[in-house]
Amino acid sequence: MTQCKKEKCRSLDRIRVVLVGTTHPGNIGGAARAMKAMGLRRLYLVRPERFPCAEATARASGADDLLAGAVVCETLAKAVADCHLVIGTTARERRLPWPVLDPRACGELALTHADAGEEVALVFGREHSGLTNEELALCQRAIRIPTDPDFSSLNLAAAVQVLCYELRMAAGAPQRREAAGRQERRVPPATRQELDALHRHLLAAMTAVGFLDPDKPRQLPRRLARLLVRAGLDHNEVQILRGFLAAVEQTAERGRGA
Amino acid sequence: MTQCKKEKCRSLDRIRVVLVGTTHPGNIGGAARAMKAMGLRRLYLVRPERFPCAEATARASGADDLLAGAVVCETLAKAVADCHLVIGTTARERRLPWPVLDPRACGELALTHADAGEEVALVFGREHSGLTNEELALCQRAIRIPTDPDFSSLNLAAAVQVLCYELRMAAGAPQRREAAGRQERRVPPATRQELDALHRHLLAAMTAVGFLDPDKPRQLPRRLARLLVRAGLDHNEVQILRGFLAAVEQTAERGRGA
Repeated sequence: MTQCKKEKCRSLDRIRVVLVGTTHPGNIGGAARAMKAMGLRRLYLVRPERFPCAEATARASGADDLLAGAVVCETLAKAVADCHLVIGTTARERRLPWPVLDPRACGELALTHADAGEEVALVFGREHSGLTNEELALCQRAIRIPTDPDFSSLNLAAAVQVLCYELRMAAGAPQRREAAGRQERRVPPATRQELDALHRHLLAAMTAVGFLDPDKPRQLPRRLARLLVRAGLDHNEVQILRGFLAAVEQTAERGRGA
Repeated sequence: MTQCKKEKCRSLDRIRVVLVGTTHPGNIGGAARAMKAMGLRRLYLVRPERFPCAEATARASGADDLLAGAVVCETLAKAVADCHLVIGTTARERRLPWPVLDPRACGELALTHADAGEEVALVFGREHSGLTNEELALCQRAIRIPTDPDFSSLNLAAAVQVLCYELRMAAGAPQRREAAGRQERRVPPATRQELDALHRHLLAAMTAVGFLDPDKPRQLPRRLARLLVRAGLDHNEVQILRGFLAAVEQTAERGRGA
């Protein structure tokens, strides 16, 4: 299982994020932080306007190792020269020779290639103008993050965040299932028998305080049974509720005795 | 087609983003921009450290209408008082009475409820310390965004971006919406206020029969609060349980009178 996990990490290591012509250094820092949090490490910068820069380091907030290791290139062609799959992001409708993917499909596609040992690049354009047509021509696939048609202005670091998140989801599918198993709660859930006993006890207490007429119960018993099943009670919670119901019965008993 | 699209927008309009105790105003602006790009509009701020603030407006970059319309509240309880489903984010492992969802499951769950006409809240904690246990106890579900175990530091606006992205993806999936429509229940789910009132009533009845010592309540109130939110009660069920609790109180009262 650990081997499997390492294997997946190595797949993420085969995926690089390439930022082209970034104007605001804060976005480079934000992108680095987004990458690192999702388990990606390889950052390429094509002609960044200002880099290195204190603002980038501040926004990276702990991901400055990615900034220090960033590869700065003169052209996108150089940044993706050794890549087998290059995926470009686009915010606009463009005439493209291939269908535009959504981020989920992109994550799965990128991981499939990285798992097969290929080098993959995810390319993000300039804040205001995106990628040029020449740059997009270097990409085998294009992706677009779905946005509101009336406000499609996505921050660059936010776009990197969404795509890196989808990469992590694609990479983590089996681990996540495993983790879900571990999260199992420590207190065992109530058994069917415990729930039945609680149901009977509840009806008895309701009868004792005059809330339920056992001769005319109407829908009440069935509704309460449904409610108890849906509540997902655990063993301890059943004990607590039955303790309360016992106290209710004793109180009613004392009232009758007096 | 356009009608269908409008329908989707209305569901997203039933989902609010609640930021609790945000320290950096830039994150409020970044969150607003992330929301608007994904088609969400309703922002609630619980005790923000600085707001309104020029830094928030700058980072919102066009989403300043969301900042202008933001509802500022004193407590999380007030911000979610009219909500049927409250989902809290958590970065840490916690002992929780429910399984922790991932963002995808969260998006689907939130949309299903919003499609059914319910009010939904997505709650984000403070940058450094997240939500308190008391705040998390107001949530029916918790979600965690998967991160690298060695660097789980996700920027607040980036976390909002990921979840709003999943909401948009969920809103755009037509099969899911159809299925959700069929599941719609006729009785409205209990509101946060109704659940709070039921919780208080339950504690009062437990005290009346001597099951709870109000001077030494221990974990009981919190455990019961969790149980009640998890149970997914509807309006009628709350009425039934409160009717029973009122009968318990009257019985205890008569016992004392005798």
